[in-house]
Amino acid sequence: MIEQHVIDTLRRSFELHGFASIETRAVETVTQLLRKGEIDKEVYAVSRLQNDDAGKDAALALHFDLTVPFSRYVVENAGHLDFPFRRYQIQKAWRGERPQEGRMREFTQADFDVVGDGELSFKYDVELVLLAAAALSALPIPAFKLRVNNRKLAEGFYRGLGLADTAGVLRSIDKLEKIGAEAVAKLLEDELGATAEQAAAALALAQIRTEDLSFVDQVRALGVHDDLLDEGLAELAEVLGVAMRQAPGTVVADLSIARGLDYYTGTVVETVLLGHESLGSICSGGRYDALARKGNRIFPGVGLSIGVSRLVARILSQEFATASRAVPTVVYIALNSDEAWPQAQELAAGFRERGIATEVAVAAEKYGKQIKFADRRGIPFVWFVAEDGTHQVKDIRSGDQEAADPLNWMPPAADLAVSVVVGSPADR
Amino acid sequence: MIEQHVIDTLRRSFELHGFASIETRAVETVTQLLRKGEIDKEVYAVSRLQNDDAGKDAALALHFDLTVPFSRYVVENAGHLDFPFRRYQIQKAWRGERPQEGRMREFTQADFDVVGDGELSFKYDVELVLLAAAALSALPIPAFKLRVNNRKLAEGFYRGLGLADTAGVLRSIDKLEKIGAEAVAKLLEDELGATAEQAAAALALAQIRTEDLSFVDQVRALGVHDDLLDEGLAELAEVLGVAMRQAPGTVVADLSIARGLDYYTGTVVETVLLGHESLGSICSGGRYDALARKGNRIFPGVGLSIGVSRLVARILSQEFATASRAVPTVVYIALNSDEAWPQAQELAAGFRERGIATEVAVAAEKYGKQIKFADRRGIPFVWFVAEDGTHQVKDIRSGDQEAADPLNWMPPAADLAVSVVVGSPADR
Repeated sequence: MIEQHVIDTLRRSFELHGFASIETRAVETVTQLLRKGEIDKEVYAVSRLQNDDAGKDAALALHFDLTVPFSRYVVENAGHLDFPFRRYQIQKAWRGERPQEGRMREFTQADFDVVGDGELSFKYDVELVLLAAAALSALPIPAFKLRVNNRKLAEGFYRGLGLADTAGVLRSIDKLEKIGAEAVAKLLEDELGATAEQAAAALALAQIRTEDLSFVDQVRALGVHDDLLDEGLAELAEVLGVAMRQAPGTVVADLSIARGLDYYTGTVVETVLLGHESLGSICSGGRYDALARKGNRIFPGVGLSIGVSRLVARILSQEFATASRAVPTVVYIALNSDEAWPQAQELAAGFRERGIATEVAVAAEKYGKQIKFADRRGIPFVWFVAEDGTHQVKDIRSGDQEAADPLNWMPPAADLAVSVVVGSPADR
Repeated sequence: MIEQHVIDTLRRSFELHGFASIETRAVETVTQLLRKGEIDKEVYAVSRLQNDDAGKDAALALHFDLTVPFSRYVVENAGHLDFPFRRYQIQKAWRGERPQEGRMREFTQADFDVVGDGELSFKYDVELVLLAAAALSALPIPAFKLRVNNRKLAEGFYRGLGLADTAGVLRSIDKLEKIGAEAVAKLLEDELGATAEQAAAALALAQIRTEDLSFVDQVRALGVHDDLLDEGLAELAEVLGVAMRQAPGTVVADLSIARGLDYYTGTVVETVLLGHESLGSICSGGRYDALARKGNRIFPGVGLSIGVSRLVARILSQEFATASRAVPTVVYIALNSDEAWPQAQELAAGFRERGIATEVAVAAEKYGKQIKFADRRGIPFVWFVAEDGTHQVKDIRSGDQEAADPLNWMPPAADLAVSVVVGSPADR
């Protein structure tokens, strides 16, 4: 119920921003999946258990994310889509990783992307950061922080600094949190030929982290000049400026964020749940100037992916939220004779038409036993016909019982549907 | 959107009947999957693409239905469940079949089952037939017919007739629609040693089909006597009797229904979409006295499975229903200057808080061009600020335009959310 609540809430956020849902098959060709390289060890292959036509078909595998399938989808459907095309996609993905909390071999991702044909306004980068903040804010989770950087800023800075292998520098800086500043400096000097001063400047850049626009002056103070750097600074400043007004407290300019994948070309985002940093990023992505290619058409995109399973695992283990009851049922119709079952079913049909989730007992056991069963299932109300023929409804939680009209009774609005309550039962 | 509507509608029906949602992983061990035998050719195996630990792990495969995973789930969680346990499960499954309309290699099933611990009242058989009728009636599909039979009835009849291999007779009768009565009679005589009279009686039974209780007399008229037959007749009569009252016109006693699988032990159901019989059954299942076993505990169940993908494929190909628009967006906020973008985003945030799905233009192109873009995407309203500074909203469909208050405007209720409209656009 918690997971379904998270997914329903995300759907709602995405649709309020005009994103339409698509779904792609779980299985892709291996060729398609490995196009970006590097992750073949994590991929699960799929084949017929009794393969009578071995070799006849292309090798297949389960998708490991939703970006690669979406890229294929865009190419295949380019003729039918209106660009900029905005879609969300909430599906399972599979990776052969070592399982731990927040890292499962089968997991659900919620992706949202905008894709253009040939060009795509930078404004979408800003919009998607706002959407990420809005979507995460609607979930029953603690405070989070979107850590935003810009590849142009970083690459321009390294270039202006005289470090030509900007991708190599990015990959080294990406290891900062894991191996520390000293080890990264050594990497930069030993493997990329940086001087101590260049390494120090690259590390100084990565240490800049501001929740306002002051990061711009801090970068300028490092004395590096480059056109791409200027462009990146302006873009990141626009993201921060708008986010400070519209989603205050949720976004930080964090110049250490690199994102491992090479295809990001502008805005990059990772997200931490405050106090739960070890969980890893719960929402990541960015801008890629070529999400897909078809002949000489290029489809740039900007998109983010929310780790639904990762979040839900933490919500459950930390009791960030609980369901108000374990079953959808609001009322349990008890029987005073086995023969009353068909009439009880008709009563139930009327209740259900009014949106009241109803179960009917199957045997006229003692009322105490029937009430106990409903109570054990967490059903709040029991309905029965008293000896005087009146219909009675009992709130099992309070013990209150009153006569009720079967044609008009409604439970209190708070009990009608299962609600997801923020905080653990112990906190209430 | 249609598929999502179908799934949402089914969820609603199941929950109104007190069924809670569960989900099981897509991957099971091959041993678990092949426990019931017979279908190994259809199963898709799953393995690491670069298998460094070949042989270390148990062989894995994608589940081909939701019953086998549910059976495992019941055994694993027996200590935590309150029996009778009622769950629904809407998930993908995979089968290596020859693809055609209504038969896909990756498809979505919607299963609902009640499972007991040791025993399970027959009343649940009746309840589940009623739920199937209610759930299907809520979908945008043509009239359907639940074809119900009872294994006890058929087996008792064959036994009373003197045919000991009742399973063999059932398997032969199951081929009736495919190969015809003459070929089935030959099978019964050649392979099961039936006399011409026995074969004729078995075929006569299979030809009985009534929408009321008259099937009981028709069976009695065949002159066979058996206790199990009596029990089956009484059960089927109870299903029909209740269904005639509560779901009139949706259920037929059809004594040709056998269901291939051996583990059914009572009520069996198949469902046809009238006028679309070639699509195959859209909702099938029945009673099994041992859904699962754990040591000497036995878990009987009764359950049905709706073929969501099969139904959705037909809804789309026949335009049984269409979405009122292609995108969730209700209103498109046009820009009269690029600088107005952040304020437009703030306006959009206010709209979204009121539940209005909103998109914002990214560049102040000519209004005509901005309206054309919204129109192409199927968005009904465009919002803009006129030269005199007033906010204006234009219904693109009618061309009507009026001044509107950005803090209070609401679109007509019919436009707020995408609706699924029964019938094709051509019919409207």
